[in-house]
Amino acid sequence: MYNAKAYSAANATSSLAPTMISRREPLAQDVRIDILFCGICHSDLHTVRNEWKSAMPTVYPCVPGHEIVGRVTAVGSGVTKFKPGDLTAVGCMVDSDHTCRECAAGVEQFCPNAVFTYNSPDKHLNGVTYGGYSDSIVVDERFVLRVPANLDLAGAAPLLCAGITTYSPMRHWGVTKGKKVGVVGLGGLGHMAVKFAHAFGAHVVVFTTSPNKKDDAIRLGADEVVVSRHANEMNKHTGSFDFILDAVSADHDIDAYLNLLGRDGTITLVGAPEKPLAVRAFSLLIGRRSLSGSIIGGIAETQEMLDFCGTHNLTSDVEVIPIQKVNEAYDRLLKSDVKYRFSIDMASVKST
Amino acid sequence: MYNAKAYSAANATSSLAPTMISRREPLAQDVRIDILFCGICHSDLHTVRNEWKSAMPTVYPCVPGHEIVGRVTAVGSGVTKFKPGDLTAVGCMVDSDHTCRECAAGVEQFCPNAVFTYNSPDKHLNGVTYGGYSDSIVVDERFVLRVPANLDLAGAAPLLCAGITTYSPMRHWGVTKGKKVGVVGLGGLGHMAVKFAHAFGAHVVVFTTSPNKKDDAIRLGADEVVVSRHANEMNKHTGSFDFILDAVSADHDIDAYLNLLGRDGTITLVGAPEKPLAVRAFSLLIGRRSLSGSIIGGIAETQEMLDFCGTHNLTSDVEVIPIQKVNEAYDRLLKSDVKYRFSIDMASVKST
Repeated sequence: MYNAKAYSAANATSSLAPTMISRREPLAQDVRIDILFCGICHSDLHTVRNEWKSAMPTVYPCVPGHEIVGRVTAVGSGVTKFKPGDLTAVGCMVDSDHTCRECAAGVEQFCPNAVFTYNSPDKHLNGVTYGGYSDSIVVDERFVLRVPANLDLAGAAPLLCAGITTYSPMRHWGVTKGKKVGVVGLGGLGHMAVKFAHAFGAHVVVFTTSPNKKDDAIRLGADEVVVSRHANEMNKHTGSFDFILDAVSADHDIDAYLNLLGRDGTITLVGAPEKPLAVRAFSLLIGRRSLSGSIIGGIAETQEMLDFCGTHNLTSDVEVIPIQKVNEAYDRLLKSDVKYRFSIDMASVKST
Repeated sequence: MYNAKAYSAANATSSLAPTMISRREPLAQDVRIDILFCGICHSDLHTVRNEWKSAMPTVYPCVPGHEIVGRVTAVGSGVTKFKPGDLTAVGCMVDSDHTCRECAAGVEQFCPNAVFTYNSPDKHLNGVTYGGYSDSIVVDERFVLRVPANLDLAGAAPLLCAGITTYSPMRHWGVTKGKKVGVVGLGGLGHMAVKFAHAFGAHVVVFTTSPNKKDDAIRLGADEVVVSRHANEMNKHTGSFDFILDAVSADHDIDAYLNLLGRDGTITLVGAPEKPLAVRAFSLLIGRRSLSGSIIGGIAETQEMLDFCGTHNLTSDVEVIPIQKVNEAYDRLLKSDVKYRFSIDMASVKST
């Protein structure tokens, strides 16, 4: 074990503050990574504040962060894919059981024994896993990704959650050139969805409640922008979409979007409104439409996504902050006051 | 034009009563069919009582019936597929525009100009189309199906709506040998779903609110029966289904069934509860599950279904009635007092 600098929350109402945590020394299969950037995801905030306690109660101290980019500093004796100096990334998972049907299918995110990057039982040390708000992390090489050298590293960090969460469902439901794709909600996830859908060659329509996001949506790659409160703008698109990615976590009228799908069209939720969605059966029956959900993506697909981003020089739009501003960033996140993701420059943790 | 005997409703509150209607003489592409049996579908009752008036107001007099089996008595000069004496069937549609993307894809049920067998504008005569509660019907040969000779004709009639409505989504979502398939609701649609899923080689689980339907479900082909009000029985199946066909039109807890789906599993609605369904986003996100809908099937697929039924000697379980008992049958239908479909012996209309 060695001591690592980190930022942690002591309980559900405390701010994040500097601390020291224990990390294991790399085992045979492990890679030790010096963390350069870590994105701030809404899940970090939910976990820190124990807002998912019914499904996954938070164990304190809690060190969040699962959008990690860093450089390898040491590798275990059995590591074959990485060497010191390599640019790497770690996303939402650091292990799985490698034996179940989900792992065999390359969808480790659905493995019943998936180990998440933070707040999951840690089989090596007591307690739970600690995430990326830290100077370093030690991860089984099977859960370490390679980062293309041309990418801006601050902007690459959010690819590990916001990126794969939007990339994976678009690949799964066949977003390709010529398809008409909607993106509901232009935040951390939504802005990545626009970039990917555009890069896939789709005709991209952004739905937003804020008319003032129009120019930015176009800049990000949207072909059209619809203000969702204007029924006449919505109606023009009735029955026309192949796929809609819905990244809204607030309560909203899903039926209004179902009616925009063409035959065999799908809406995929990547946000999780607390209140159940009200779905009219007829909106699904007509046109054999589907409403579905998706969570991050598998490890091989995450690598594929990073490689795709390398080829297209595609990263997240980020505001880089030092770790000392993380509590302020959380407050701003709740007001959607960021374009479009905070990325923590983890060099800053060294001065704590 | 010629006069045909039929049963019609004069308005939304009147009983069905004998009447004479006009049918066109067969045009070049038309087939005239002497109707032998016509199934009674819930849609008949909804239309007769104008219960879908917001979407499709009923034009009176209304002659329902879209589960038609009969024998060809005359064909137009251009008809190539049928000759007098052939055993044929007509389902929910009698025409479409033949030019749109949906027709090209063989899913005429989604053609924006589909002509339904009753209560659709009739381009040949004034008014609307008249359905199968009649001694005969004249239909474009492209919408006439061939009935395998070995099938019991009374039981074959419901295949044209209840049959294709359950066959089509199971084919579309890949129900095959080895899949675990649920059927919710054991009525006219549900009992056909059980028969098809069993014939496809799936492991079939029936969900019912009535424990006394258990034996019958097993007889129809179910491998297991779950009483849906018993939470412990439901919980045993959490995360295990590939596909669930939901044939329930009453309000019900869809979330309880979503949680029974395995990864990439789908629930397809073929019933249409009036009240919107309450869908928890997490129930979709976990396991990348889908909730979808489906309506009947295309013409080629309907023929495929009939041929499949011929091969497996598969028909609907019916109670055969004379047309004179149709009003009583409607009352019993509302109480689900039929195992599992009424089939009208249309010879009875001749004596009216």
